Amino acid sequence: MVELENKGDSDKPETWFIEKNELVKGYSIALTKDNVLFHEKSEFQDIEVFENRLFGRVMLLDDMIMVTDLDEFVYHDMITHTPMCVKPDAKKILVIGAGDGGVVRELVKYPGIEHIDMVEIDKMVCDAAREFFPTISRELDNDRVHLKFQDGVKFAKDAPDSEYDIIIIDSTDPVSVGEGLFTKEFYSDCYRILRDEGILINQSEAPFVLPDVVKGIHRKLSSIFPVFRHYMGIIPTYPSSLWLFGFASKKLDPVKDMKPDEWNQLGLKTRYYSTDLHKASFVLPAFVNDMLDSSKEDEDKKA
Amino acid sequence: MVELENKGDSDKPETWFIEKNELVKGYSIALTKDNVLFHEKSEFQDIEVFENRLFGRVMLLDDMIMVTDLDEFVYHDMITHTPMCVKPDAKKILVIGAGDGGVVRELVKYPGIEHIDMVEIDKMVCDAAREFFPTISRELDNDRVHLKFQDGVKFAKDAPDSEYDIIIIDSTDPVSVGEGLFTKEFYSDCYRILRDEGILINQSEAPFVLPDVVKGIHRKLSSIFPVFRHYMGIIPTYPSSLWLFGFASKKLDPVKDMKPDEWNQLGLKTRYYSTDLHKASFVLPAFVNDMLDSSKEDEDKKA
Repeated sequence: MVELENKGDSDKPETWFIEKNELVKGYSIALTKDNVLFHEKSEFQDIEVFENRLFGRVMLLDDMIMVTDLDEFVYHDMITHTPMCVKPDAKKILVIGAGDGGVVRELVKYPGIEHIDMVEIDKMVCDAAREFFPTISRELDNDRVHLKFQDGVKFAKDAPDSEYDIIIIDSTDPVSVGEGLFTKEFYSDCYRILRDEGILINQSEAPFVLPDVVKGIHRKLSSIFPVFRHYMGIIPTYPSSLWLFGFASKKLDPVKDMKPDEWNQLGLKTRYYSTDLHKASFVLPAFVNDMLDSSKEDEDKKA
Repeated sequence: MVELENKGDSDKPETWFIEKNELVKGYSIALTKDNVLFHEKSEFQDIEVFENRLFGRVMLLDDMIMVTDLDEFVYHDMITHTPMCVKPDAKKILVIGAGDGGVVRELVKYPGIEHIDMVEIDKMVCDAAREFFPTISRELDNDRVHLKFQDGVKFAKDAPDSEYDIIIIDSTDPVSVGEGLFTKEFYSDCYRILRDEGILINQSEAPFVLPDVVKGIHRKLSSIFPVFRHYMGIIPTYPSSLWLFGFASKKLDPVKDMKPDEWNQLGLKTRYYSTDLHKASFVLPAFVNDMLDSSKEDEDKKA
């Protein structure tokens, strides 16, 4: 646990939280820890919930910010509505991670979705979310949501071929618990268990501060899936805020094949996503395009 | 000065800097202050330069991060190339603030620009930039750049009608030194001194953490200029990173009137901006559009 205390001229001493990030050193989001509501060690990780005056409730996993009341809608909008606008007739979905319930909250808004398997390794994350993040976790008990507390990597390995229309990987960073969810083996299983028009979405990390991780994801996923593109969202409480998501599919293009009219007819209320923003979010800053191009060159050199 | 010291389990004690932000409480970007290179009080503000292992050199004005080596290109690309792509034949430009020199560095890349008046209130900002940020400040002495160390508000009031093609307002936040650069009076002077096809660009703050400031800028500028739209960039070291810029003009539309072919023929090297990103950056997240719409409604109610 890293905690800091003011030694300066502020009116009263405050405890500031900064992340203990194995991958990003010397920089963090800092939040005052105004009130600690929950702090336990699960079988897998350290879980803490505290209140901050600006971001509301904040969940930490192993001292990394996972979700906050103020900005959770960005991540959850972008990771769910983007694939759903490309495949609005999706019926069976696999969600890996996402223990706070935000992803399934968005998915159950689609009446056409019949079955969601949600595979979260750590039951205590769901329990804490149910207790402290009721607006995020509120659909965890929806009839269409089938919660499985097990390892997502093993679940994908054991799942039958061509089972899912969409797979959403809402993982932690590629250290400790999350590591297996960034491997070629796991991505290959995802490919196998996706249907012909299937789409995989994953959180693909931060080009400003984790360029090598971003390039690695790009290399692996684009070597397995015929279609692979990154898109972006802005998440203030994640390192550097410029966050990438990966869109991998067997044939559908994330922009050419999107169905904005069909999506807009559903009348869903979103706070970040729109069909115009969907298109715009696939237009990446020049340095990110250069980074992804160079990851291909690295691969070419190896070949 | 707010400084924090680890009391936790890190290998060695580190000094972390967090912003002392009058407008945003309980949240900050945190950077380790690895080496302080400069710290002086000018006539106007406290100026500090330190080194951080991830972001390189960092300049603080009154304990707020103004510029860092790692991410300065985002701000400077977006605030200069966006108007220049809409009016690539601009000849005379007024830059207000921007003491680090990043804005004029980008502007002098355009051979068609004949004259840049740069009005910075605090000479010590330029001096510190020349010494510690050579790659940012390197064009401050360009023949076409006319540096004036004076108050931008007064400069605009005294300037003749229809003098400039583009005005770029690269200000601090609307507190202390920067406050006058967010008033209706100042914006009206800017309107008056702009030519018929003139464009004003300003930094328009952060919708996640400063919604009222964003709405105020929107209300004021759209009451004065026939065309006003916000666009966005992602600046990791500014609060919440989602940063708005304002595009105000007498007649030119920022997207319909852009000249991507003309701009691309210039062959300028950019790291964030591209003509595709230009268009995409005017597509704002749903909650930002709602915020801006509600600022119009506030105005309607008053009328």
